[in-house]
Amino acid sequence: MSAILASATSADVTSAVVTAGDVAHRLELVREHAPLVQCLTNVVVANATANILLALGAAPAMVDIPEEAGIFAGVASAVLVNLGTPGAEQREGMRVAARAAADSGTPWVLDPVAVGALPVRTALAAELLQARPTAIRGNASEIMALAGSGTGGRGVDATDSVEAAADAATSLAHRSGAVVAVSGAVDRITDGERTVLVRTGDARLTTMTGGGCALGAVMGAFLAAGGDPLVAIVAATSVYTIAAEDAAERSEGPGSFAPAFLDALASVDGDAVRARARLT
Amino acid sequence: MSAILASATSADVTSAVVTAGDVAHRLELVREHAPLVQCLTNVVVANATANILLALGAAPAMVDIPEEAGIFAGVASAVLVNLGTPGAEQREGMRVAARAAADSGTPWVLDPVAVGALPVRTALAAELLQARPTAIRGNASEIMALAGSGTGGRGVDATDSVEAAADAATSLAHRSGAVVAVSGAVDRITDGERTVLVRTGDARLTTMTGGGCALGAVMGAFLAAGGDPLVAIVAATSVYTIAAEDAAERSEGPGSFAPAFLDALASVDGDAVRARARLT
Amino acid sequence: MSAILASATSADVTSAVVTAGDVAHRLELVREHAPLVQCLTNVVVANATANILLALGAAPAMVDIPEEAGIFAGVASAVLVNLGTPGAEQREGMRVAARAAADSGTPWVLDPVAVGALPVRTALAAELLQARPTAIRGNASEIMALAGSGTGGRGVDATDSVEAAADAATSLAHRSGAVVAVSGAVDRITDGERTVLVRTGDARLTTMTGGGCALGAVMGAFLAAGGDPLVAIVAATSVYTIAAEDAAERSEGPGSFAPAFLDALASVDGDAVRARARLT
Repeated sequence: MSAILASATSADVTSAVVTAGDVAHRLELVREHAPLVQCLTNVVVANATANILLALGAAPAMVDIPEEAGIFAGVASAVLVNLGTPGAEQREGMRVAARAAADSGTPWVLDPVAVGALPVRTALAAELLQARPTAIRGNASEIMALAGSGTGGRGVDATDSVEAAADAATSLAHRSGAVVAVSGAVDRITDGERTVLVRTGDARLTTMTGGGCALGAVMGAFLAAGGDPLVAIVAATSVYTIAAEDAAERSEGPGSFAPAFLDALASVDGDAVRARARLT
Repeated sequence: MSAILASATSADVTSAVVTAGDVAHRLELVREHAPLVQCLTNVVVANATANILLALGAAPAMVDIPEEAGIFAGVASAVLVNLGTPGAEQREGMRVAARAAADSGTPWVLDPVAVGALPVRTALAAELLQARPTAIRGNASEIMALAGSGTGGRGVDATDSVEAAADAATSLAHRSGAVVAVSGAVDRITDGERTVLVRTGDARLTTMTGGGCALGAVMGAFLAAGGDPLVAIVAATSVYTIAAEDAAERSEGPGSFAPAFLDALASVDGDAVRARARLT
Repeated sequence: MSAILASATSADVTSAVVTAGDVAHRLELVREHAPLVQCLTNVVVANATANILLALGAAPAMVDIPEEAGIFAGVASAVLVNLGTPGAEQREGMRVAARAAADSGTPWVLDPVAVGALPVRTALAAELLQARPTAIRGNASEIMALAGSGTGGRGVDATDSVEAAADAATSLAHRSGAVVAVSGAVDRITDGERTVLVRTGDARLTTMTGGGCALGAVMGAFLAAGGDPLVAIVAATSVYTIAAEDAAERSEGPGSFAPAFLDALASVDGDAVRARARLT
């Protein structure tokens, strides 16, 4: 994710579909409204996800038991369903929350972690698609598996490239109605008709546990402001990866990257985004 | 939580009920005895809570399955029951642990996360009150909900002020027999008869996931030394928020705050507390 | 774990059984192969464990539900079973994963957290021994309890010295067929015939939650490269504790130690290990 277009001006690398100004505006809306993002996520990244939402200016709530998840999805600003460690009780909570989100019009994000490689989550992801997620975020292997064109990679690691998943992403967007985001060195985001590539970022995000998973929660925060979901997902990804660049500059390894990333997320603002977003 | 009384001398801001010397003495007892604090807490903050106890000089043990939680509560120095992510198995563990703590005289702390807003934990908190917690810690909305005078706020966020919860705190203390601590910019701690305000702290505690929840565990560590529970809860809060002030000075954002807070907790000592506690 | 032999040359403190060169070679193999380590571990340390594996150059996968744990154990490079928070669903996942690992020849590590002190995990550990772990890692009290010669200490804290556990470690190695590693100021590692002491390390590892538990996962990463399991376990412990020394030098307390440890793990290389390993 090196800044390969670093010498270009912002105007050169602003997509016609989503501009750097759109990204900045969305970030300002998140800061203004402090959306409450309900996360049904895996135990490995729950803490990191909550910290990342707080640093951004959003509010996390990890409400995931079946008896409460649906009630909360009706009042939350957005919902994240991440299939990383899908125990039986949480699976039921996910079903209830996704249905309640769909029924109440709460935007929700599906992160199909390791789908394709493992049976329980693969079946669950297929079932959850029926509750029409607003966005789906995964690596190339996960998106290909969910679209029916791959096997899901190696645990949480992609074994396919973002480019290889392009057709699968478009097809999945058409079939599901969701904006589909394929994470990688360059992030590919499509609603099936329009496609935007987010070219900011840093490889250290991949050595921070939760670096990918928490992006799903951040997408929820950006979706909460309403408007065009494609713009929201591009904005979330752009802000997130710009902060990653800042953190990489200020850190010496994967350990110092994590606190630097939270500091960077808290301090990145509309002006920084206007100057540095690289979208094509 | 800015140090609004920074120009006052320590003597000016030491309560008649609990003195800065009391706080320092309690901290020294914790360091000397390294109390073993059993935590039945939510998955989001379990790691942060354990790290905070270790930095303080206490020992954490996250024993929460029903078959073991009661046995352990009989030998632990103190028990924390935090309702943040109350899955069915953990709920049963909480019932067993609270009962065992009550039966064996182990001090225990109840943190009624998001009570009022969500049904399962609200019913469980009411049930757990019968096992007579030694202390109850929550934000204003949670304390008001538990006292029967509010709706519980927005997830983990308080929507009410600490002052608004003053009557609820007093009433809950009378009814439950517990010391009640309302966390906020100024922390309000009461046993129903005596009330102490702890004026140290920093807002960055609210951007560190587990900043509030781990305070409940620290209260357990201070209760373990015995003596007047009100003094213990005031001492725990005072030490914790003084460390937060140190960490805020040494950090540049929410990410660098967290490790700085652990470093500060490990290095704060009786002399620092004597000089800097602000209690009224 | 101070470097009590700091003035000695590497040759002086290289064991005849495992040399510093062996350790360096194993580290290089881990970096080259990026082994996928499946972790069935406790919720408190899951995030720290994943970060530590990533910093080392390995890949974590926290697949622990019964329906998926066995499938994954058949394809993972190694498996860790850590009994820290053994809920009913995870216990079943552990049984399935251990059996699948044994059947498919995947090396696996058992970490019997708090065994002896608590009944459910004590019974489970005894049962899991029948699936022939490749290595067992614990503190002195846990190893003595598992060998049938102690009571298991105080929660996660050892109440016995590493030396006191020497006979228990040898006996457990003979009975189980596993390499047994007793963690402490000096780590003692034995396969029942050969014993190596690893003299590097720093006490700050004990104030970082997961410092011990994650070592079990790192052992899995080193076992994945194949060859003599005793060499693998010594190499894992040596690399881990050398990184801890680096981190202690660069940090000011338990909070800054954790990110410094990840940075150190990511940067330690074969040359550093050749110069600094202290094995006897």
